This record gives sequence, structure tokens and C-alpha cells, in this order.
Amino acid sequence: MNCDYLVVGAGFFGGVIAERIANELGRKVLLIDKRPHIGGNCYSETDADTGIETHKYGTHIFHTSEPEAWDYLKRFTELNGYYHQVLTTYKNKVYQMPINLETINSFYNLNLKPYEAKKFIASEISKEGISRPRNLEEKAISLIGRPLYEAFIKGYTIKQWRKDPTELPAEIITRLPVRFNYQETYFVNARWQGIPLNGFTEVFEKMLASPNIKLELNCDYFEHRDDFKVACQTIYTGPLDQFFAYRFGKLEWRTVNFKKEVKPVEDYQGTSVMNFADPEAEYTRVHEPRHLHPERSYSREKTVIFYETSGCGSNEPYYPINTENNLRLLRKYRELVKREQVIFGGRLGDYAYYDMDKTMLAALECFKNEIYPQDK
Amino acid sequence: MNCDYLVVGAGFFGGVIAERIANELGRKVLLIDKRPHIGGNCYSETDADTGIETHKYGTHIFHTSEPEAWDYLKRFTELNGYYHQVLTTYKNKVYQMPINLETINSFYNLNLKPYEAKKFIASEISKEGISRPRNLEEKAISLIGRPLYEAFIKGYTIKQWRKDPTELPAEIITRLPVRFNYQETYFVNARWQGIPLNGFTEVFEKMLASPNIKLELNCDYFEHRDDFKVACQTIYTGPLDQFFAYRFGKLEWRTVNFKKEVKPVEDYQGTSVMNFADPEAEYTRVHEPRHLHPERSYSREKTVIFYETSGCGSNEPYYPINTENNLRLLRKYRELVKREQVIFGGRLGDYAYYDMDKTMLAALECFKNEIYPQDK
Repeated sequence: MNCDYLVVGAGFFGGVIAERIANELGRKVLLIDKRPHIGGNCYSETDADTGIETHKYGTHIFHTSEPEAWDYLKRFTELNGYYHQVLTTYKNKVYQMPINLETINSFYNLNLKPYEAKKFIASEISKEGISRPRNLEEKAISLIGRPLYEAFIKGYTIKQWRKDPTELPAEIITRLPVRFNYQETYFVNARWQGIPLNGFTEVFEKMLASPNIKLELNCDYFEHRDDFKVACQTIYTGPLDQFFAYRFGKLEWRTVNFKKEVKPVEDYQGTSVMNFADPEAEYTRVHEPRHLHPERSYSREKTVIFYETSGCGSNEPYYPINTENNLRLLRKYRELVKREQVIFGGRLGDYAYYDMDKTMLAALECFKNEIYPQDK
Repeated sequence: MNCDYLVVGAGFFGGVIAERIANELGRKVLLIDKRPHIGGNCYSETDADTGIETHKYGTHIFHTSEPEAWDYLKRFTELNGYYHQVLTTYKNKVYQMPINLETINSFYNLNLKPYEAKKFIASEISKEGISRPRNLEEKAISLIGRPLYEAFIKGYTIKQWRKDPTELPAEIITRLPVRFNYQETYFVNARWQGIPLNGFTEVFEKMLASPNIKLELNCDYFEHRDDFKVACQTIYTGPLDQFFAYRFGKLEWRTVNFKKEVKPVEDYQGTSVMNFADPEAEYTRVHEPRHLHPERSYSREKTVIFYETSGCGSNEPYYPINTENNLRLLRKYRELVKREQVIFGGRLGDYAYYDMDKTMLAALECFKNEIYPQDK
């Protein structure tokens, strides 16, 4: 197969790169993805049982304060008015997440003002006297005190990592956001947030509409690596370690799984994402995607929910794990990257947790600095 | 004073009309306002003690789902990422407003799902068996049941109206929004919401920047009525009854007052608007405008708050009162309007509660249908 550029992976990094090459350089791009669809983990589709737009790889909300990211995205879509909030259930009671003034007052049955709550949490922290946390549990307690940790972090962490927090390294968390106000949108200060009016998948369809882009789905790069004749450049957005045949060992990823259920009610849980902090509930979160499109008229007879569990059953990589060992491996792989002609990018290619807007911006930068100047 | 058009009132209705006449028709407009500033009740200014942008006539949040309103506004400003939520304090505990699933669960100490809460509230309502409510109290109970009414409506209404709800007509409220979900933004489904990045007053400054607009502040229409020589048309946005010298009697308005206080803390209450449902607290709401601009870096040493009280002390008209008597008067005044050459508009001119976007759209319509065709 001949092409000017080969882009491996049709998520946001690969998609933006392909769009720019096709429309700005007017070059031919072969865009491949091993999955049967475009969009990477942002992929959305209409649920056949309910007609509700669902996010196959977990709830995605676009949010940014970067005018460049917004200017780029709005060429392909408008956003609906959805704003994101997260709630958590602990011992049969619903609380705001991340922990904010309402969470604190509700949990402790107090009515503190912001400046009082700050002192109160500081005193909760100092009770424990942890100056050098040796594990995740101690780190969390040193940030928010023991009672809030036990309620909102401990059980959730056990389910997320399938390990006791005392066995997890402290460096996995650098901070635990605590808001000493009633700010209840998850993405504070995001100048723009929402869901693409017609879903994420349509954004990718529009982005990749150029006849200069040839799309090959169900195409595994590693099965066809030697068949591609690339005139200019390969851009690779798959797993970094796989590219190098796991030479130094595997980079670890945290993964999540979703189990679908249709419920015979209009609204099952009243919000798009509900966390479950109790260790008793086996799932970490329940997603109800109908709430992502408040502007749509969905069925009043049924709704679809997804139970999210963590860490086993699937091997789709979702979140990099910032342990010393993984970071050491990462440095070694990055040394190899320097010797390659291939461009690496995206969450998998960089072994990094990127939001959608940051991925888009990184792709735009990459095109501007590494691809465009070489070609013109 | 000579002009092509005279616009009375520099709020959103008058402001938009003046802008359109000046820029679209290229005609001369004399825009007068009896206040010392433009912007009507949307007027914002920097508080001298704290540097915080404040809304002199109460917290204003722009919100719309009308593309035409948004397209018009964005010619003069961008919006920040603020989204509005309202909380209420009752018996030393903070709840979500309007009443939603979190309010219900928190108040009753339950953990109902949306469909369970619907049945629960229906049973609370049916306990009281009110089919023909004779007053506001009975109306409210017939909509949400007695306990929620007693907690969140009764005391607040007494303070708002300075009357017992049993003495207020049922027709003042047609509905009490109850959300059987956790939707916590006040303006659900608003495609666009936020505060103009540089405040509302700057929007008006830009809107009225044309040299075709001559602005006269501190100018009372009724003191100078005979001095204006208007070639084309007068647009009047002042009180409807005053225009006709209160011939049939006065239309009643609910009014509010604000008492400013500077507090020596960064954040006093953690949110922009806190309602107080208890009858014991004399104020209905406390506004803390620093929260309207989360994107700004304000003083960490102090903040400014405004206690809002209702119904006496000031005679600024804020909210029309939908009693039978007022609506009867309104119909009589509207008969007089038909015989006038003057165009009436805006909240005061129509005796109606309009949001900002609706006011802008009404002004754009008025220009398009009544002013432009006459002039061209």
C-alpha cells in the first residue's frame, strides 16, 4: 500500500494529524486503526435498544479553556449545553465530588463557611501527624484527613486498583482536590464544555471526510508493518512499548470495563456519572449517558446504564500508572524514540494521560512544527 | 433637542434598538436614561473596596439557547465559563435549589432514585388532598407537599412578599419546578451561559459606541417630554403606567434592596447566590459576586457580599406581580398603547418578566418589523 503519510490510530491525535495533512498539505494519508471504528476512546454510537447516544469507552466530556483547541473543534461541531458534575454514593447517601464544601458539611453534618472548613480540614490532617507518607493511604490522609479518606478514597481505590491503598505507592496521587466552596461543576473554569451536538463520532467523520484520507479499519499495524510504503512519514499513536516489541518489558496501564443494562424507567440515577465509594458495591461507577444530551428527546420508557469496573477482564489500556518502575521504563523507551524517524503521539504513544483538548493541541503543534516544515 | 429617534431607557431593550438604528439604519439616536449609568438593571461596576466586579441590581447571568440572541451578544463580548447554581440554607443546612433529587434525599434523609422520588412526592401531595388551591400556600402544597413547602417556600415567601402565603393569591405561582434528577445548574439546557468576560457594562459601552448615538444620562423623560423633537419615532422602555400618568392606577412591582458588606476573608459563602429559607434570617439572599468571575484573580484578603431584602425601602420596579387586579390594569393600559405612535418595550414597558436574551430578541424583532421597514 502506497501513501505519502501513514497514521496509525484514528483517535484524536491521529485524526487531527490526518485532517491537517489532507487539508493543509493536500497530501495522501493512509489512516489505519485496529478497531472497527474511528474516534479512539472517544467513539460514540447510538444504543440499539434505547436510541440513546452512548460512549463506548466511558463518559467523555469535551472541556477546554484553550481558544486554539476550541477554534479547531468548532469547525466540526457545536457543543450542547451539558456541563459535567460527578456525584458519589457512600453508605446509601449521595455526595458531591470532588470533595467540596457541600461534601464536607454533609459528611460531618456541619454548616461551615469556606474559611472555617479550611481550618477544620487542616486540623483533621494534623491529628494524624503524617509528614512523610509511605503509601497511598498515608498520602491521602495527609491531604484530607482520615474520615474523608476512609469514606471517599479508600473503598474506591481498592476497587480501582484491586490492592489495599497501604500497598500502593504514594506517588500515584500527587494531590486530592478539595474545594472549599460549592463549585459543583467538575471542570471549574473551563471556558467551553459540553458534548458535540451530534456525538463524538460525527466529529471524526467530518474531520476525516477528505478524499485525501484513506481509512483502513480492523487493520493492525503490527500485522502489516512491512507492507506499508510510506513516502514521507509515519505517525504512530499506538502503545509505545508495543512499537518496540516490549523490549524492556511492558508499561502498565489501568483498564476499565463496562457492563450494559437497559432499565425500564425514563431516568435511572438522575445524573450521567455516579461513583460508588463503598467497597461493597463491586462497580466503581455507573454511567447513564442519556444525561449527556439534555437537549434531546429520548424514550420515556427506558434508559441504558453502564456499570464500570476496574482492572481485570479487558486489556484495553486507559490510564498510565505513575509508579517509579513504569517511569523508568518510559525513559528507556523514550531514548529509543529519539533514534526513530517515526513520530509518536497521543495517550498511548506518549504513555501519558491527556485530555481531549490537550491531545488536539499536541497534534496541531506536531503538525505545525514537525510535519508541515518538512513537507513544504 | 433634535433627533431621528428617541430611545427612553438604556437597558437591553433600549440599548439594542439604539445600536440597530445607529449601525443598521445609520440614523441619529438620542438615548436617555434617568439613572447616572447605562445598562439598566444589568449594570455592573468594580467595587472600590475590593476590586470585585459587582452587579448593582442583583446577580445577572446571561443564559440562552437562542442562536440569534447569542450571535448578537457575541459581537460585543465573550462569556466566561461561569455556570449558575443556587443553594439555599434552611435550619443551618445547605440544600440545592430549585428543589431537586439531592434536595429531596437530603431533606428526607433518603436515597431515592428518580422514579422513586416521583412517586414519593406524589404521595406527599395526595396526603393533603388539595384540589382547588385558594391561596399561594395551598397552591404550593398541591405542587410539592407540605414538608418541602414549609421548609423551602413558606419562610422565603413571607420575606419576599411580607405577607403570609395564605393571604397571597394562588395565581402568583403557576408552577414550582421540582427536578427528579441531580441537575444542579440553574439554567438547564441553556446552550450558552456565563458572564461577559469584562462585565455587563462593557457590553453596553461597546453596543452604544457609535457616533450616531447621543447618550444623555440623569435625564428624566417626564421632565423633558415636550423638549424632544423626534423626526421618526420614540421608543419607550420606562414603566408603562407612568407613561399614561397612572391614569387607571399604579401597576404593582415587587422590589428588592441590597446592603453591601466587605468581609475580611477570601471567600465568605463559597457560592454566588445563597438563599435563606428560614423566616428568622431577615434577608432573602446573600450575593457574593467574586464567584461570578472564577477566571479572575481577586484579592485573597477580602470579599464583598450583598444582603438582599424584599419589598420595602426602595421603589425600583423589579418583578411584575401577576395578580388579577394587576393583569386587569395591564389590559387597560395596553388598550391605550394601541392608540400611541410610541413603541413600548422591555420589562417595564411591557410589565413583564423578561430574561436578558428574551429582551434582546424582542428588541431585534421590534427593529426588524416596526422600525426598519418604516425607515427604508
